[in-house]
Amino acid sequence: MTDLSTATTPTHVGHSQLANAIRFLSLDAVEAANSGHPGLPMGMADIATVLWGKFLKFDPARPDWPDRDRFVLSAGHGSMLLYAVNWLTGYKRVGLDELKRFRQLHSLTPGHPEHDVLAGVETTTGPLGQGIATAVGMALAERILNARFGDELVDHRTWVIASDGDLMEGVSHEACSIAGHLGLKRLIVLYDDNGISIDGPTSLSFSDDTANRFRSYGWNVATVDGHDPEEIENALASAMNADKPTLIACRTIIGYGSPNRAGTSEAHSNAFGAAELAATREKLDWPHGPFVIPDQIVDAWRSFGVRGRDASAAWSKQHEQHRQRAAFDQAIAGDVRGLDALIQQYKTKVASEKPKIATRQASGQVLELLSPSMPEMIGGSADLTPSNNTRVKNSGAIEAGNFNGRYVHWGVREHGMAAAMNGMALHGGVIPYGGTFLSFADYCRPAIRLAALMKQRSIFVMTHDSIGLGEDGPTHQPVEHIASLRAMPNLLVLRPCDAVETAEAWQLALTRTDGPSLLALTRQAVPHARTDAGAENLTARGAYKLAAATADERVTLLATGSEIGIALDAKRELENAGIGTSVVSMPCWSLFEKQSEAYRRSLLPANTLKVAIEAGVRMGWDRWIGPDGIFIGMEGFGESAPYAQLYERFGITTAAVTGAVRARL
Amino acid sequence: MTDLSTATTPTHVGHSQLANAIRFLSLDAVEAANSGHPGLPMGMADIATVLWGKFLKFDPARPDWPDRDRFVLSAGHGSMLLYAVNWLTGYKRVGLDELKRFRQLHSLTPGHPEHDVLAGVETTTGPLGQGIATAVGMALAERILNARFGDELVDHRTWVIASDGDLMEGVSHEACSIAGHLGLKRLIVLYDDNGISIDGPTSLSFSDDTANRFRSYGWNVATVDGHDPEEIENALASAMNADKPTLIACRTIIGYGSPNRAGTSEAHSNAFGAAELAATREKLDWPHGPFVIPDQIVDAWRSFGVRGRDASAAWSKQHEQHRQRAAFDQAIAGDVRGLDALIQQYKTKVASEKPKIATRQASGQVLELLSPSMPEMIGGSADLTPSNNTRVKNSGAIEAGNFNGRYVHWGVREHGMAAAMNGMALHGGVIPYGGTFLSFADYCRPAIRLAALMKQRSIFVMTHDSIGLGEDGPTHQPVEHIASLRAMPNLLVLRPCDAVETAEAWQLALTRTDGPSLLALTRQAVPHARTDAGAENLTARGAYKLAAATADERVTLLATGSEIGIALDAKRELENAGIGTSVVSMPCWSLFEKQSEAYRRSLLPANTLKVAIEAGVRMGWDRWIGPDGIFIGMEGFGESAPYAQLYERFGITTAAVTGAVRARL
Repeated sequence: MTDLSTATTPTHVGHSQLANAIRFLSLDAVEAANSGHPGLPMGMADIATVLWGKFLKFDPARPDWPDRDRFVLSAGHGSMLLYAVNWLTGYKRVGLDELKRFRQLHSLTPGHPEHDVLAGVETTTGPLGQGIATAVGMALAERILNARFGDELVDHRTWVIASDGDLMEGVSHEACSIAGHLGLKRLIVLYDDNGISIDGPTSLSFSDDTANRFRSYGWNVATVDGHDPEEIENALASAMNADKPTLIACRTIIGYGSPNRAGTSEAHSNAFGAAELAATREKLDWPHGPFVIPDQIVDAWRSFGVRGRDASAAWSKQHEQHRQRAAFDQAIAGDVRGLDALIQQYKTKVASEKPKIATRQASGQVLELLSPSMPEMIGGSADLTPSNNTRVKNSGAIEAGNFNGRYVHWGVREHGMAAAMNGMALHGGVIPYGGTFLSFADYCRPAIRLAALMKQRSIFVMTHDSIGLGEDGPTHQPVEHIASLRAMPNLLVLRPCDAVETAEAWQLALTRTDGPSLLALTRQAVPHARTDAGAENLTARGAYKLAAATADERVTLLATGSEIGIALDAKRELENAGIGTSVVSMPCWSLFEKQSEAYRRSLLPANTLKVAIEAGVRMGWDRWIGPDGIFIGMEGFGESAPYAQLYERFGITTAAVTGAVRARL
Repeated sequence: MTDLSTATTPTHVGHSQLANAIRFLSLDAVEAANSGHPGLPMGMADIATVLWGKFLKFDPARPDWPDRDRFVLSAGHGSMLLYAVNWLTGYKRVGLDELKRFRQLHSLTPGHPEHDVLAGVETTTGPLGQGIATAVGMALAERILNARFGDELVDHRTWVIASDGDLMEGVSHEACSIAGHLGLKRLIVLYDDNGISIDGPTSLSFSDDTANRFRSYGWNVATVDGHDPEEIENALASAMNADKPTLIACRTIIGYGSPNRAGTSEAHSNAFGAAELAATREKLDWPHGPFVIPDQIVDAWRSFGVRGRDASAAWSKQHEQHRQRAAFDQAIAGDVRGLDALIQQYKTKVASEKPKIATRQASGQVLELLSPSMPEMIGGSADLTPSNNTRVKNSGAIEAGNFNGRYVHWGVREHGMAAAMNGMALHGGVIPYGGTFLSFADYCRPAIRLAALMKQRSIFVMTHDSIGLGEDGPTHQPVEHIASLRAMPNLLVLRPCDAVETAEAWQLALTRTDGPSLLALTRQAVPHARTDAGAENLTARGAYKLAAATADERVTLLATGSEIGIALDAKRELENAGIGTSVVSMPCWSLFEKQSEAYRRSLLPANTLKVAIEAGVRMGWDRWIGPDGIFIGMEGFGESAPYAQLYERFGITTAAVTGAVRARL
């Protein structure tokens, strides 16, 4: 192996020693935890050493430097590589103690890298394919911000280490295809081509010619010996100048250095045990004890961080004097100034005009209003733009070589879109929203979950939210989706009933900075419900009394979205028959759960008959209607027919509500 | 265009007229419905005419002929192509009236093709990517059965029409990559390369070199003018003899024949309107009125079916005399003879031995026992074989050129695996089961949903089903997954608590013929709970009294899976303190919902305090515990730590249960 580190490191520490520091920190940590994945850190240590040593733009003292390079360990099971490098390069928070507490409760070094646990972890990874797809969004955000603010403020790269598994996952196809289409030349993927997966050699299940696959996406592709630092350095240098995204296939040996496990699936996971650990120490000529890294090796690693410190300081000077500084800072801060006034303007207008429109149409109107003054908002759709109403008039499309647009045509790539949106949100400076049909939320679910886990402001615009979709039939009609999404922690599921609630839902989604939101919107027109449109965002309460009982309240109707119209009609009929009835609109359960018990009781008094009406499954409604409540909704999949007939067919009608109430009272 | 149909059709009807019959039936039906997608049927009519006219092996009088070719319209929005051909070739059930009722309530011609609605529809399609991935499973099942029964009984092809959208979807990558790896030469995909998607030209979002992409998967690739029947015929003939799966990229014009819409995204969906319809009739020289197809054209189409009738009769003769006839018929019937005795044998054994093992381990033991006598069972895992315990000892792997194995190494392709399993189930003759971690059920969800919608016996083995997974952390720990899957109609979600329940879960999954099952299994060992292991499958009741109160029942503990151990410990402690407590095991909610009210009340008496214990979210539990009940479980995402510490951390412990009960009583 060539020693290329002598020039950059003061103490003439060789490349191998630098790389072996990663290897043994990883091995020792896995051994201490008796759990984890040593194979990848050992195999990719040489790559990481060259990357951090010579290329990556980072400042350990300033992990939130906006113009830093982003590094994504898509193969998140190799987390110890990241933690080892994090400590070696001198990030403040992680100490050796934390490495020793790898995979222990409340440590900073969890089993897979978690964005909100440790600085320097740009995204949470582990579920394969997510990292590389998220990185596409980061690389896209960089180009968008570069187009807006120029090279002086935005000029960085996104680096990814991806495994065979990442590239087998379907989402890698979606993400890498759009990355090629958009010519995201600042994206460089280091593919750990080690030929091993958990079941055994990848030849058990995998024969892709990955280089040609990526060429077919319009990528630049190179192949290197992943243990030859000179080859690696040359390939990375070439990739820095490519005019396309680059895949570097790194032929590596998993568990490199282990006499008996290297090159086998045995090396992938689990502790090696004392004997093999000792043998590996001997083989790699590493006489140091567990977690012992000689000072001069640490110093050499720390010197890489110094390079970043200088770059970061130089950037700050440019930033300080930049004419767009204020706008840039606002974008990075993610503020949504001016939002409230615009929302109020819209609410007042529609509360007076009472339009009977689909909530997807109302959503489009809100976006038209907000978009001009909120340049951070970047829209998109997975090839359902005319249906999702996500594209604002006069907003240009983002395309290869022109990142001045505000709209991404994601193609039929729901999962890739959602994951890339997460990357955009993580990168900062942009607020991504993207549309598809609610039924296809299933396609994006792994990425939606990561947004929730990472507390990122990804905004999912999911239209055609029930059997109200009509003729397209059961494959396209969400039935269980709203329930299944409500079950996900930290996802705000919003199902507004009219234009006012739709505006409020957008207000919540945009102001929320600790997690994603999902708007479930109708295809069909719905009657306007909210005539009261004061400054308070009632949707923020999760549920509120939309219409009070005019007589003694005996019945409480609970509904969301398109079924609010049915509830209001039923209330009218019941009250005509002398049965005092209130209507509670429940656009967001999770927000309602957070209200005081007194408030919740005020909406759901103990002694009334509760009737829930929702064109979805019952799951979860029992919490609100109690054991004596009535649920009017779906019991199974939908059918293909005009939507009004489907509401009749499935008995989600005013007559069904009033009939059920009368039968009970 | 060359007229190649003269040789095969008695009345010298030209190819164009045959193809135009598809075009106008489609146009007229979409017009009548004022809804639908005419663009694909018009663009692919020439392909379909050559395929059905010259190649497809089918018998309209015998849609369940086991050795028929399978045709999958992956681009399901073009459903009218399938319905038109179905009627033209003379399938019995569909009449012209049904075409006129396209997309209407209870018609046989729903918006997207639905497997259980119309014979000749081999799989439900519509969510893009699913069809092509399902077809991979069909083509695989064909090879497996061919290896078992030989060419005389099993010798057919799987044909697919796929769109740009299908190929953009990630699942197409997973499925086509494994199809190439396995060398599924009987799979032929006709790619409708029309350059148009909903948002506009595909160039908005798509630059893949699809031919090279598929070559990189090891496919045979051809390109044809999709409107030149001679070119099409030659390409299909070549594909019939290929030794790899084949992709034929068909350059077509969407909405072919429409003067003003052809070649634009306008042609994709929606009715054309009277004026454009008239103009299209004139342009294509089609003087016939709506839904009028001249007799000689119908006769020509019907003659294609006659070809199939002869082939089907010849096959029947071979079948009648075949030495493996009985085994073949049993495989096709999907019977699971002998199952009950084996399950009972296992139950008796473990009820006496009371092993403290993980339910994934119990599942592996059950599979070891069943597999030898059930050759229809084909297992697999998405590269988690050692973790999922899905591979039976001595079962060979299925690989290219050798389909005698019983196990598929699917690679890290959860979604492709699940969709292909659906295709295997639809094909018949095999019973597919496949494993991954429960957390990655999210990756397969669109395919799981289709299995439920299509009522197919796909068996999903999902291990590592909670925070009990431990150190891998929140990305790998299911929290909301069980709730979200319970919300899905017609999916049996089974979370067994020990080896007995695991065996019963397998018994249910294998005997079920009207839908999929999902087994949620622990990573960690759990105490044995069921000492009563009689012939009755108690899991089939959904819930049952596992341990009755020894004193007057004041508390009812409800739990599933790994939390049954906590419930039993809590019961002991509470009863030691004089508080009569019963434990109800609830391995399958949906089965419990179907029990009589009397039975349900007997388990959940009105006057006891109900406490639910499950290491997942609360969603849905209120139905069982009522408004005064207590839920002990998860409120958010998990963490990375040894699992026992996580149970403490999240308060899912015996002490938490007894403490909450005492505080309440």
